[in-house]
Amino acid sequence: MPASLEIEESIKFLPTFDHNGLIPVIVVEQQTKTVLMFAYTNQEGLDKTFQTKQAHFYSRSRQKIWKKGEESGFIQNIKQIYIDCDQDALIFEVEQVGGAACHTGRKSCFYRLVDFESYSQDGKVNLKVIDNHKIFDPAKIYKS
Amino acid sequence: MPASLEIEESIKFLPTFDHNGLIPVIVVEQQTKTVLMFAYTNQEGLDKTFQTKQAHFYSRSRQKIWKKGEESGFIQNIKQIYIDCDQDALIFEVEQVGGAACHTGRKSCFYRLVDFESYSQDGKVNLKVIDNHKIFDPAKIYKS
Repeated sequence: MPASLEIEESIKFLPTFDHNGLIPVIVVEQQTKTVLMFAYTNQEGLDKTFQTKQAHFYSRSRQKIWKKGEESGFIQNIKQIYIDCDQDALIFEVEQVGGAACHTGRKSCFYRLVDFESYSQDGKVNLKVIDNHKIFDPAKIYKS
Repeated sequence: MPASLEIEESIKFLPTFDHNGLIPVIVVEQQTKTVLMFAYTNQEGLDKTFQTKQAHFYSRSRQKIWKKGEESGFIQNIKQIYIDCDQDALIFEVEQVGGAACHTGRKSCFYRLVDFESYSQDGKVNLKVIDNHKIFDPAKIYKS
């Protein structure tokens, strides 16, 4: 069968990493189906995620693997991992320890939405904050 | 305030595009909260999405903007757009016309999950298909 069909229809796990060796990960809370955050991982991060059943990502700014919650304690226990049709994107379905995934202290990193009513012809638009509840105080959790 | 705080806490829409001019987009069905697909868009795709309230992405393989559903008719009507804390990832919350987002004919592109029980020490693992219901027949929908 053609390579694309093998990728799409087989049960072989054949993740495709981009030219930087990364694959995008959508993190979803299992219980509520809320999208908590978006990040990238690489082969090493994926291996560590499989071995520990805790989410590991690759930080492009710090250029290293990090275990989600390594500093805050708010780790993510893996419940399921999904892969998409062309095997170049993943979903980590997790139990979010502490209930907050965002480094700002909120449950989800997606706490703002586009206010379409503010959209102007020059392309400018405002956001609306829909979740301002901080489950933790970042200043007390992160040293750096 | 520091630049990072302005990005995180303000209501200014300040999307950050990567060095290829792209920003990742998670597409979620509004009614069911199902993650339907993952793609990238760029400034032009975002402008077209705002102007038409229909999802537009950038195809890295075809190197052009495409309107989701332009060939299949299965367009995505935008209900909300969310942005994350550091404004480098988006969620398009949509109404999926035709009920199927995946080019394989399935509702979601994420129709397989990792079978952890098959995980072996050499890092190999199998997938399990969790949705084999094809809402449309790709051979009848796509000419190319």
